Amino acid sequence: MTLPLGYLYSAAYAGIRQAAKDDLALIVTGLPAHAAAVFTQNRVQAAPVKLCRRFLKASHGMVGAILVNAGNANCATRTGEKAAMAVCKAASLLLRYPIAQILPASTGVIGVELDPKRIIAALPGLVEALRPDRFEDAARAIMTTDLVPKTAFAEVKLRRGVVRIAGMTKGSGMIHPRMATTLGFAVTDAHIPASHLRVMLKRAVERSYNRISVDGDTSTNDTLVLLANGASGVRPDPRELPQVEEAIARVLESLARAIARDGEGARKLITILVSGAPNNDSAARMARAIANSPLVKTAVAGSDANWGRILSAAGNAGVAFQPARTAIHMQDVLVCRDGVAAPFSEAGLKQKLDAPECEIRLAIRGRGKGEARFWTCDFTEEYIRINASYRT
Amino acid sequence: MTLPLGYLYSAAYAGIRQAAKDDLALIVTGLPAHAAAVFTQNRVQAAPVKLCRRFLKASHGMVGAILVNAGNANCATRTGEKAAMAVCKAASLLLRYPIAQILPASTGVIGVELDPKRIIAALPGLVEALRPDRFEDAARAIMTTDLVPKTAFAEVKLRRGVVRIAGMTKGSGMIHPRMATTLGFAVTDAHIPASHLRVMLKRAVERSYNRISVDGDTSTNDTLVLLANGASGVRPDPRELPQVEEAIARVLESLARAIARDGEGARKLITILVSGAPNNDSAARMARAIANSPLVKTAVAGSDANWGRILSAAGNAGVAFQPARTAIHMQDVLVCRDGVAAPFSEAGLKQKLDAPECEIRLAIRGRGKGEARFWTCDFTEEYIRINASYRT
Repeated sequence: MTLPLGYLYSAAYAGIRQAAKDDLALIVTGLPAHAAAVFTQNRVQAAPVKLCRRFLKASHGMVGAILVNAGNANCATRTGEKAAMAVCKAASLLLRYPIAQILPASTGVIGVELDPKRIIAALPGLVEALRPDRFEDAARAIMTTDLVPKTAFAEVKLRRGVVRIAGMTKGSGMIHPRMATTLGFAVTDAHIPASHLRVMLKRAVERSYNRISVDGDTSTNDTLVLLANGASGVRPDPRELPQVEEAIARVLESLARAIARDGEGARKLITILVSGAPNNDSAARMARAIANSPLVKTAVAGSDANWGRILSAAGNAGVAFQPARTAIHMQDVLVCRDGVAAPFSEAGLKQKLDAPECEIRLAIRGRGKGEARFWTCDFTEEYIRINASYRT
Repeated sequence: MTLPLGYLYSAAYAGIRQAAKDDLALIVTGLPAHAAAVFTQNRVQAAPVKLCRRFLKASHGMVGAILVNAGNANCATRTGEKAAMAVCKAASLLLRYPIAQILPASTGVIGVELDPKRIIAALPGLVEALRPDRFEDAARAIMTTDLVPKTAFAEVKLRRGVVRIAGMTKGSGMIHPRMATTLGFAVTDAHIPASHLRVMLKRAVERSYNRISVDGDTSTNDTLVLLANGASGVRPDPRELPQVEEAIARVLESLARAIARDGEGARKLITILVSGAPNNDSAARMARAIANSPLVKTAVAGSDANWGRILSAAGNAGVAFQPARTAIHMQDVLVCRDGVAAPFSEAGLKQKLDAPECEIRLAIRGRGKGEARFWTCDFTEEYIRINASYRT
């Protein structure tokens, strides 16, 4: 698959993180792009998040570049906004875009001052290294505790030609639904006005980034940006927009799923499907409650078909439903029918639960048509190990 | 301290749990007692919880005995209500109390049928063994993954004499605020009408059981019962009721704290104090968000002064506050002032965080007078180990 036209990427090591691996990523569009973005709903917001909001307002949603650093969240810092501003200003001069068209993003430890000089010193090399095919390098540079880089791609054939979509993202702790989780950047060469783009992103996020959870914590830095630079020369017909939106949503879904799969310490991706709830929103709440239950997640880690915890977690979602009309499947095996145990082979299911992907289906019989899909990961001792000494 | 007058206790092994340790506890009052109770708010409710509600209604809040089994939650079971009913009926005959005055409670695994015959067979011996001083034995019999029995006692000297309060409780997973968490039974020999008792319990729960969290999961069986049999012959003067309520609340607080301290896999009790919030309710929401953050709890497990996670967790509570007016203390050491890092000795604080009790204080400067206290525990690899194979 071809990458979207008109974008350049690069990565470099600026010395922000201690390990000597790239900690700086740059995404530049040749033509200014229409942008849509969603940010964390945490009351504590990092300096780059505040700056992004301000810049997008000032630029009327036009973006020339995204500059990301890993290793320092630039949050709860005295000089945070000044540092982010200095970095954007330096990038603005080098890239010849107005400063308000440079979006900053940061990820890493909270509460440590970010030294802008290191990034500014690395910038000329970073700009020099810009290439259309360094997408993967950039995706690697934004990683923190991630084990693998996370990218996804799509192409849509429209009447007037092909448009392309590419996305990168990072996890893998402090992952929670309710928002664009962690950092994600998607680019397309379709021509889409900013107003359309915002609506498309909002809907696509609802079924992707808002449907994953690793540990129930929402970060202070969550940022998801979607750029559309029109470099393909293809302006989708209004009737074709749903097709483009579907492709964008699939890319975001794939990225979100990759985050859950690579959750800190995770060995398994868990997909949760709820059906028969009063409506889609209550289905999502039940799925989220199951996904956030440490007891469900540890049971899956131990390949233990503890469906009682699934039922109990669903009961904590604040949604009225009848347990006696509820069935639960794990890995396609019926474990609970009408709210009580169904006969199944413990040994057989235990083996099936050892797989790297586990599916939990909770279905309520009745007139409800609400459905939701949610992704999370199992909860292992490794999560504790990673997080007991992240900072020191 | 003397136990409340007029109560008998006993414990026995009925073979409900596999390990051959007592799994049956009986609390009997010589005179029928006024009772108040709170139950889980989970939509999935165990058979004994449903029965308790029904019985308390039918008996107008009068209780003769509480019969508890550990090892099986009697939840999501086909024959659950029938089994609980059969057990209560047998106890009713032996104890000569109407069936609606026997409250059943269960804790243990969900979704496995409870065999009432085992309990019924053990009942005569259990009744035979009733003694006024077997409080501790009963407290031991209701344990599941608890490492220690949990009891608390108080005495209040009133104008007309002394009244006594005793409480027992169990944890130590599926512990969450918002309700009477897990099982708790408190008895007093004061004479208190049921209507007063209910109000007192509700307020006392708000500052005790509703202020602890181990893993954020609310059980299907949570039950807290308070009995007042009047056996002391002391009817508190209306002006003395606050004193009695305070003593009851202190007993419940002590029990709740003991649950948090003995949370599954926990090595440390964490006390969270929030002040300066818009009101007490929002302070409690912020404290709860901090207490429920796996990232905060793992950091404390690693004695890592990661205050950024504390600030971020507070930001997820949905309460509007200014991070720039926020200070955080850990073990009395100022780690964050005005929302940014305060200078402190890493090594010194790390050592202080190795203590079995850790205190986190988050204070917002300004006009807000909202305060809350909350208890939780650290989050260790042992929690995962316990829960990855609880059932099998």
